[in-house]
Parts: sequence; C-alpha cells; structure tokens
Amino acid sequence: MSEQGQRGTASIRITEVGPRDGLQNERRVLDVSQRVELVERLADAGLKEIEIGSFVHPRWVPQMSDTEAVAARVRRRPGVIYWGLIPNMRGLERAIDAGLTHVATVMSASETHNRKNINRTREQSLAEIRAIAEQVAARGMVLRTYVSTAFGCPFEGAVDFEQVLSLVRALADLDPEGISLGDTIGVGQPERIEAGCRRALEVLGADRLVLHLHDTQGLALANALVAVQAGVRRLDSSVGGTGGCPYAPGASGNVGTEDLVNLLEGLGLATGVALDRLVTTSRWLEQSVGVRLSSRYYRYALARSFYGTASA
Amino acid sequence: MSEQGQRGTASIRITEVGPRDGLQNERRVLDVSQRVELVERLADAGLKEIEIGSFVHPRWVPQMSDTEAVAARVRRRPGVIYWGLIPNMRGLERAIDAGLTHVATVMSASETHNRKNINRTREQSLAEIRAIAEQVAARGMVLRTYVSTAFGCPFEGAVDFEQVLSLVRALADLDPEGISLGDTIGVGQPERIEAGCRRALEVLGADRLVLHLHDTQGLALANALVAVQAGVRRLDSSVGGTGGCPYAPGASGNVGTEDLVNLLEGLGLATGVALDRLVTTSRWLEQSVGVRLSSRYYRYALARSFYGTASA
Repeated sequence: MSEQGQRGTASIRITEVGPRDGLQNERRVLDVSQRVELVERLADAGLKEIEIGSFVHPRWVPQMSDTEAVAARVRRRPGVIYWGLIPNMRGLERAIDAGLTHVATVMSASETHNRKNINRTREQSLAEIRAIAEQVAARGMVLRTYVSTAFGCPFEGAVDFEQVLSLVRALADLDPEGISLGDTIGVGQPERIEAGCRRALEVLGADRLVLHLHDTQGLALANALVAVQAGVRRLDSSVGGTGGCPYAPGASGNVGTEDLVNLLEGLGLATGVALDRLVTTSRWLEQSVGVRLSSRYYRYALARSFYGTASA
Repeated sequence: MSEQGQRGTASIRITEVGPRDGLQNERRVLDVSQRVELVERLADAGLKEIEIGSFVHPRWVPQMSDTEAVAARVRRRPGVIYWGLIPNMRGLERAIDAGLTHVATVMSASETHNRKNINRTREQSLAEIRAIAEQVAARGMVLRTYVSTAFGCPFEGAVDFEQVLSLVRALADLDPEGISLGDTIGVGQPERIEAGCRRALEVLGADRLVLHLHDTQGLALANALVAVQAGVRRLDSSVGGTGGCPYAPGASGNVGTEDLVNLLEGLGLATGVALDRLVTTSRWLEQSVGVRLSSRYYRYALARSFYGTASA
C-alpha cells in the first residue's frame, strides 16, 4: 500500500505523532509556523509518515487549532505521508478541505474512556467510523484507526483483550490501511504487550498492525522490543517523547522517536531516520514548548554534546 | 552458595549497588548516618544483597569516605548480604577490619579504562585480584569480581568480547561467588548484550553471571529483558537510578531498582522487593542528594501520588 510496506521484514515503519499526540498534551500552544517547522524538521530527519495535527474543536484542544493552516503550509514531499487525526465526521470534512488524503479516526477499547474522551458510546463511535470509512473510500482517501486504552484504562483498569480483538475485527472490516493499538496511559508490561501483539497480528498481519506506546513507567522500549520479536513492524512515536500523560502529569509521554530509532537500529532493524537530526529537532522543540523533554536518548545526546565527552 | 541461589529459575537475585555505585557518582556527599539509613531502608524494602560502600581512598572518592563507620552502624539482618567494594589489597584490609565478609573487586575489560580508573595495567590488576582471592579464601570470606566496560569503553569504543571472556575465565579460576559484567557507560544495545550474556553464561552458568547495567541511553530495561530471556538470573541495580554517568554528566546512572523490579515482576519473575518501599526510599534519597533521580518508575509513581490520579 505504501512504499514502506515493500521494504521487507528487516525494516520498521515509524509514524511520527509528535505534531499531534505530542503537542496536544503540552501546556504551551505552538503557533502555526512553529508547528509547520516541526513537521518539516521531522521530514528532514527521514520520517516518512507524520501526523501533522488533529481536526478537533479548538475549544477542547487549543494546541490543535488551525490545523488547516498547518496542512496548507507544510511542503508536500514525495514519499512522505501526512496524516490528520479526525475525531468525527466534521473533522473529516475539515481534513478534506485542508487537502489531506490520509486521515486517522480514534476510539477507545474501554467504554468509560471512550465516553470521557469522545463523549460517545463505543457503539456510536463505531457507527461514525463506519460512515467515515465509506466517505474515505468513496473519495479514494486512506484511513487509519486508533484503538486507545487497548492495554489498560485509567478508569476501568485492565481491559479484556478479547474485547479489544472484537473491536479490531470490526474496524478491520472497514478496510483501514492500519489499526494502531494504543497503550494510552503506558501501563502495558512486556508479557501483556507481547501476547496482545501476537493475537492482533493473527487478525491484522504485520502490514496493518501498528503499536502505539507511551513511556509512562519507562517500559516502552522493553515493550517495543518484545513487539518486534513477536513480528510487529509498525510503531508510532513522538519526537523527544513529547506529550506527557494526561492521567499522570509529570510522567513521560509517547515513546520518544529517538529512543525507538536507537533501539531498533541497534537490533538491526532499519528505520530510515537520522538520529542526529531528531536530537537537533528535540533541542529546538524543547525550547519551543518550554518543558524538559523526556526522551532518554535525547537527554543522553544532549549531555554528551554539552560536555564534549568521549564517544563510545 | 547463598539462600537466593536455591530459589529456582522463576526468581531473580538483585544486588543493590545504590549506596556504593549510586552515591559515589552523586555530587553531594551524604554523611554516615544518611548512608546507614539508606542501607536500612533498602533492607526494609526486601533487598537481600546490598553493596554498602567502597574502601577506596577518600581523596579519590570523598562520597565513600568512612565506609568503616557505615559498616559498623548497619544492623546486620539474617539473610541479607552486605557487600563492600575493595579497589586493592589495602581495601581488603579495611573491609576485614570493618567486619565485612563479602567483598567485591573491580577491574576493566579495556586497558585504557583500567589504567585511568585503577591506575594499573590489566595484568597488574589481575595479579592483585589473585592475591586478594587467596586472602579471601584463606579467611572463609566471599568474593565477587566486577568487570567494567565489558560492553564498551569511553576511551576505546567497542570492546572485543572474546577478550572479555578471556578475562572472565581468568577471574572464574579464582572461584568468585559471582562475576558482574558492567555496561559501565550504558552503550550496550540489546543484540550485543544478549549475545554477550549467552557466551558468558556458557562460561559461568546462571548462578555466577551477574549483569550490571547503566541506563545512559534509556536501553537498560530492554537490555535486562533480553538478558533474562537469555537465562541471566542476577542483576545489579541502584535505587532511584542514582549515579549518573561520569562520562556523560546529566545522563542517567545505574538502572533504577524500581525500574528493574517493575519490569521483572511484570515478566512473572519474583524479586522479593516491595516497589512502594523503593519509591519512598527514592523520595527520601532525592531530597538527601539534592538532584532529580532518573528512575522512570519512581518518577511515574511520584507524579501519580502528587496528582492522585486513577490507578491503572
């Protein structure tokens, strides 16, 4: 379906979600030109799939207001996919008007999180995603679907993975290009992540399953490792580990793109991403958002460059 | 040899090195009563092996001065092993005078690091450790040996693992209770760590091989995971991730004991350690050393307790 899908099993497709999932959870709101610069820097670093923002109402997420302007100003490069997150049909209309061809829907595996996050029952969400999928197909666009809280919910605790798989099957029927299972609050541990990925791979295959990890407890890289051991070939990440966790302020956000790339390249899995450019981007971003970014590799690289120590 | 060795393969022996490897790399010097309190808190948390300090000259490491007084004041509990690090024969004499029965020597896998760290050639170090081992055996004491820079050297870069294994074999001839392979500057990546552990396990077996990880790049838990997958059953760690990395100031130190326990327990591997007590200890320690501790699980637990968020 995409260029990356033809690379073979020795490479990993990374979707960079920093400009959306990262920024929407940072307190400081970046302006459009900063958001555009972030996307351009990420493309410069070699990222081939970038979620540039969401089309949610600015009253709820001011960090994501005017994503149309971001979409309009980002220079489209051949071979790079620009995703827009759409919370509902109105979001799809905005994404279409903004000229995006790749859109991502979101719903939760747990009922309570879905109600609190999207203000709908899961049944209502699924019906709306179905309607969106029809529109997307009719227009020759490409759909991705997120399943949040797939490995744990801040309100319900553990989530029955059989329920997650039922939802995955229902979404797979809509023929999305990928389904991203989110450890939204970073409570997944390696055994559960590995077992879940194995089951989801049976349903979706390696081309369609995406794993979306948060590093809340510091387990994201261990989880990514067992996932790729299990056969996962697509992961989401956020430059610098931006994003925090809305249910544990002060804790870490998405798994950092630097951290993921460092892990994967060390495992002999190609990502096509230049680590040094990510670090430079995180340095710029850290100054822009005004908070300490949590990516471990970033902090390591930064300390090393400041002190000019021996490389090893 | 020890009680832990008889637990079977579903448990992991952790040696807590915070009072030595952690504190020696923190700028602020704790006084003897604080160092004693740290050891007592760690024993309260369930740690069965604690390295309480080193017998190095206080001119070189002021953080470790008067380890005799720490040893004298720590309450000895049945079933808990109290280790003392000895840099040389003089250190052994001090450890004996302090009433310790368990001592650890240290040398590096790389020649340059050994010269800079210990001011000896590797050959000289090995000869001194041999003499120490004779004394230790003659007195019915117990020896552990550290091999630093086993997975990378700040001066030489990559380290030939065949050389590491030669050194491991030479040390194994001295009949130490354990040999701890150190990723001293945290540059090891999962593939290298796993391959190295498999080879070292062939030489030492799971009872004697210890893995000593630093989290400099954030890969320590991924490395611990592949190590236990390979059969490693003993690891060193430091409460709160204390220690920093002398060659990358600002970067993380030893793998945090909380992080390791959280990973291992999530894998179904028993550690016997109470996570909540570690977190309380790290909170106290953070205030004592006056720097932000880097343990991910600690930061997560702290954020959660501050904000009283839903547990999941």
